[in-house]
Amino acid sequence: MNLNDKENLEKITLVATNVKTLALDSITNANSGHPGIVLSAANILTVLFQNHLRIDPNNLNMFNRDRFVMAAGHGSALLYSLMVCYGYSSLSVNDLRKFRQLISLTPGHPESHLTDGVDYSTGPLGQGSAASVGMAIAESHLAKLFNQDISNLIDHYTYCFISDGCFEEGGNYEALSIATKYQLNKLIFLYDSNHMQLDGTVISNTITNTKQYFESLGLNYIYVENGDDFKAIDDAINLAKASIDKPSIIEFNTILGKGSVYENTNKSHGTVLSNEQLLSYKNKIEWKFPEFTLLQSVIQITQEFKERGKAWSDEFNKNLNLLYKKDPYTFETLNKNILMDFNFNYDNLKEIINLLNLKQDHSTRELSGLVLQTVLQDNPSFMITNPDLSSSTKIKKAKDGNYEKWHEEFCNIQVGVREFVAMGIINGMVAHKGLKGITSAFLCFSDYNKAALRVASISHLPTITFYSHDSIGVGEDGPTHQPIEQIASLRLIPNTNVFRPCNIDEMISAIKLATIEKNKPSVIITSRQEFKNYYSENLNDIDKGAYVFEDDAKIQIILIATGSEITTAMEVKKIIQEQVDIGIRIVSMPCCEIFDEQDENYKAKIFPINKKYIFSIELGSTMTWYKYADHAFGIDEFGLSAKADDLYKHFNFTSFNIAKKIIKILNKIVSDFAKLKETL
Amino acid sequence: MNLNDKENLEKITLVATNVKTLALDSITNANSGHPGIVLSAANILTVLFQNHLRIDPNNLNMFNRDRFVMAAGHGSALLYSLMVCYGYSSLSVNDLRKFRQLISLTPGHPESHLTDGVDYSTGPLGQGSAASVGMAIAESHLAKLFNQDISNLIDHYTYCFISDGCFEEGGNYEALSIATKYQLNKLIFLYDSNHMQLDGTVISNTITNTKQYFESLGLNYIYVENGDDFKAIDDAINLAKASIDKPSIIEFNTILGKGSVYENTNKSHGTVLSNEQLLSYKNKIEWKFPEFTLLQSVIQITQEFKERGKAWSDEFNKNLNLLYKKDPYTFETLNKNILMDFNFNYDNLKEIINLLNLKQDHSTRELSGLVLQTVLQDNPSFMITNPDLSSSTKIKKAKDGNYEKWHEEFCNIQVGVREFVAMGIINGMVAHKGLKGITSAFLCFSDYNKAALRVASISHLPTITFYSHDSIGVGEDGPTHQPIEQIASLRLIPNTNVFRPCNIDEMISAIKLATIEKNKPSVIITSRQEFKNYYSENLNDIDKGAYVFEDDAKIQIILIATGSEITTAMEVKKIIQEQVDIGIRIVSMPCCEIFDEQDENYKAKIFPINKKYIFSIELGSTMTWYKYADHAFGIDEFGLSAKADDLYKHFNFTSFNIAKKIIKILNKIVSDFAKLKETL
Repeated sequence: MNLNDKENLEKITLVATNVKTLALDSITNANSGHPGIVLSAANILTVLFQNHLRIDPNNLNMFNRDRFVMAAGHGSALLYSLMVCYGYSSLSVNDLRKFRQLISLTPGHPESHLTDGVDYSTGPLGQGSAASVGMAIAESHLAKLFNQDISNLIDHYTYCFISDGCFEEGGNYEALSIATKYQLNKLIFLYDSNHMQLDGTVISNTITNTKQYFESLGLNYIYVENGDDFKAIDDAINLAKASIDKPSIIEFNTILGKGSVYENTNKSHGTVLSNEQLLSYKNKIEWKFPEFTLLQSVIQITQEFKERGKAWSDEFNKNLNLLYKKDPYTFETLNKNILMDFNFNYDNLKEIINLLNLKQDHSTRELSGLVLQTVLQDNPSFMITNPDLSSSTKIKKAKDGNYEKWHEEFCNIQVGVREFVAMGIINGMVAHKGLKGITSAFLCFSDYNKAALRVASISHLPTITFYSHDSIGVGEDGPTHQPIEQIASLRLIPNTNVFRPCNIDEMISAIKLATIEKNKPSVIITSRQEFKNYYSENLNDIDKGAYVFEDDAKIQIILIATGSEITTAMEVKKIIQEQVDIGIRIVSMPCCEIFDEQDENYKAKIFPINKKYIFSIELGSTMTWYKYADHAFGIDEFGLSAKADDLYKHFNFTSFNIAKKIIKILNKIVSDFAKLKETL
Repeated sequence: MNLNDKENLEKITLVATNVKTLALDSITNANSGHPGIVLSAANILTVLFQNHLRIDPNNLNMFNRDRFVMAAGHGSALLYSLMVCYGYSSLSVNDLRKFRQLISLTPGHPESHLTDGVDYSTGPLGQGSAASVGMAIAESHLAKLFNQDISNLIDHYTYCFISDGCFEEGGNYEALSIATKYQLNKLIFLYDSNHMQLDGTVISNTITNTKQYFESLGLNYIYVENGDDFKAIDDAINLAKASIDKPSIIEFNTILGKGSVYENTNKSHGTVLSNEQLLSYKNKIEWKFPEFTLLQSVIQITQEFKERGKAWSDEFNKNLNLLYKKDPYTFETLNKNILMDFNFNYDNLKEIINLLNLKQDHSTRELSGLVLQTVLQDNPSFMITNPDLSSSTKIKKAKDGNYEKWHEEFCNIQVGVREFVAMGIINGMVAHKGLKGITSAFLCFSDYNKAALRVASISHLPTITFYSHDSIGVGEDGPTHQPIEQIASLRLIPNTNVFRPCNIDEMISAIKLATIEKNKPSVIITSRQEFKNYYSENLNDIDKGAYVFEDDAKIQIILIATGSEITTAMEVKKIIQEQVDIGIRIVSMPCCEIFDEQDENYKAKIFPINKKYIFSIELGSTMTWYKYADHAFGIDEFGLSAKADDLYKHFNFTSFNIAKKIIKILNKIVSDFAKLKETL
């Protein structure tokens, strides 16, 4: 739509006004939400939808669509209203009436797994920018992989709408730094610079020169003095789309809550307009229609969007057909990638690994690196972000170079010491679909990117994260680098599988399960230190989260362990049995979450005895283990800087000491039981 | 020391060389550590120590000393070596021999609670900058409070040494943004720009124009082309110290591992030099002394530092005496602040609160705000950082304005939507001593600043954090804003008290305990939603972490609850007792950590019955509750966007439903018990 034309200007004004009234109706009706952003940003996004965004409203998951990330997730009502005005098949006016209500498609913040057409779940600020970087990298990388014959097969823009709050978050700085490094010219940030936030003005906490800041990072910076001016908005987006080697950011100077009673005050951020206030706003802008009106004329004007999207969708289908004819194998690969069907030849891998004749002592980080090299090396659909730790975590493709936008197809993405964006990028990549995103860090630094992992968990994004250096076994680096609470903390996150494998068999199982998983993120925890690797002969149940690793004829007590503590458990068993004639089962529990999903029969088969005869051994917080065992051996205080062996002794975490304590506990139980018998 | 003088240049070169050799000896002897940074940065820090830093090596905790934060904590060997060469009373060459060994004063990363003279614990990158901002704010604020009569009573610089890794972390961006906003001109960042990191070059992940970047944020940027040039280093620090209204950053262009076999390669970051490699380095620089030599001549040259520090220390003591004579009350206040002796009149507070005639329904965020206003309002030693949520968390001094460096003494520090730095600043403030630092956020956003909280926990820093919006009771904002795993995750952090009060009595207790705490951070968790507040008559044990909230003559089952779920527990008790004649005790457990510290008698007094008759009720992860109860009611999946009441029903978390389940469990136990009796 040519916005030099006066008639068109009237048309787009009408659409933007309807977008605003529907969004405000939703908020006032729900008596909950954020009106300020609706009135500062509706014009910007209406121009984006009307003239630029290529999305087929009747084929919302069309793979080559432009992506739109509403990073300022509190602008959900605005997003839903746009989706309705632009005819998204997933939403209708009726859904706006259910805004923020139970089991609606219009929740308080956008949730990608609930609502088709929402490309990313947002709400916690600073996350959307990182995800949009992941989407733009995915587009660029997939284009290299699949556009050999058809130049526009994968070819779309990624738009990310950010607020002042996003701008302030450190995560946003990390994301922008990476966007520029990889010259993501098809990534465009739309910055609603309204100078106002929940608690007051932006200037009350920030004096950054935005132009200079964005340019210092390497962005193509465009400023729009009047962020309400449709023509200026349109021109700016056109400029951004023309950028050749830089991602763009357009700063729109806007007014929060413009036109409403709270205009340009921080109250406008989250104060719902009362019915009277909303009416008075509508009177002011001469909107005389009942609430929740979607004008027929608006439906007509937005037809342009629908046609553009349809044409874009048809083009992609045509291209797919072309690809199928030219190169059926690549066609099939692309289709599998789009469906996120990733897999590898499990049996083949086991054979290769058997040939390696593994030595007895391994760290599990080595094992994870080994499997990764063997399995993923030649698959360019697995991309790895690296927060400057891959030499240590072992998570990189060894025979592969570093990803560079313009030169190579390499899959190792260097992001510097930026754990947050390392996770945010793979979230975006997986939300985009077409690639499997992997990252790694030291387990202690999961504290830096857990917030991003949680968005993946909420949104059902099957990312894979390797956290190495998993206990005081780290040694000399000391307490800041020695996880205590982290394994347990990660297990607490809903919809997330946390694996802690103890040997090559469990590592293969974990990586296999993480690779085929489609519904949740997987975390694989590995050790820095080498330890003696034991193997179980009982591999049938290895994929079930917990299984019998080693058994006796008669089971009187059970030791549960994970990762490097399987070795401890095996030693404890030996020491106890040298002193007491008792049957001991060892249960390896590489993934509590998967075990919890097993049926009651399986659970009873693994744990056939009373909890008071069950002991857990894991070199981390004990607090979560009482779910499975009455007695937990672990560590609930911070570590120290010293050699690992010195630390085990210092913290009394030695096989001999644990065995001694178990015998003592058993003696007490026997004596208590004798007393109980007497009293009954 | 005038570095125009050729003789002086020789002297400082000698010191810097000894600093390097001692640091490298420490690393090679430990066979663990980071040599690269020693060789890139020793010259910079030697000039800082020789000519600028005002620290009395024999009075390391002198309050008005300059602060030095080694943000690049992997440079620990360099720091310890400097401390030894400059005669810090806390360390000797012998301690360098114990570098990174068990129970030494020279752990792998600097730990402020272990080693006098270490101003902040570092290691996880991006943290030191935030803490140094807190220290500089503390200096500036304390100067306003206490320098009425004596202009240089509180008057020192804060130096923060950062690496490329720090620079890349989002937290560093947040810290710099706040430093400039508050015009912390006595804060000086020394940036070791050596272009190299663990996995490769900086340029492999970052193309930022550093000059433009730092200037855009508002820093006084100084560039030193040859970061090894003593005179240039000295000039730059002098320039920085002269800054009137801006914090400074000096970028030193350096070479990682300069002179060693790994010079200017990423291997230099963490690869220990072998004995031969170290010898070859020493030969190259013509250092002919045995390992761990501290030259007498160096001790002589660094005398200047000791004398400057001593004079500075004497000046402070003189000033203190002056203050004592002029204004004994202020003298006493300052002394208490330095000792971190904060307190308030507990009984007085209770009287005031009684006068308020609280209504029956309150959210605990309201209660926390109420106590805060009443207790802390007029105490300028309590400072609050606010990541743009205080209107919602209620944690601000209502009658007080916002802190502004040049104008006011106000205590509310606006930091924008930057939860990480909000926590980092109060850590630095408390590490500095003299002020009690408080922050707040939504509980879900603890994921953004937990990494900073952990440093406080490791370092025994008694900060106070209020996290509001503590369950699905948040309602419409949906799963990204509804904590599930966060309460449990926080409880897992060692050396941290996590309170979740249920009424005004428990709120007063929590704030009192957090205020007088000197050894660990306190977290106070509050609800967004109002709920019916119950009161216990049994307040004697309220400070013991868990206590009998409501009791029956005969105790057959126990319900443990916290926060808003005390209300649920009271309702559950009533519903059960309407159906079954059973004695029910309700235990309120506002702080698990404090309860765990009680003696066994107290624990047995609170929980006199078998765990199988104990039930926990808390609207969050259940997994940690099995330590206390065999049956846990909570929520282990993500929430949804809806009205809170709809959510309780949807997730079956209603009093009626919980009561029903408890009765069912009891029936099963009774039937099992009958069976057991038969079989015995």
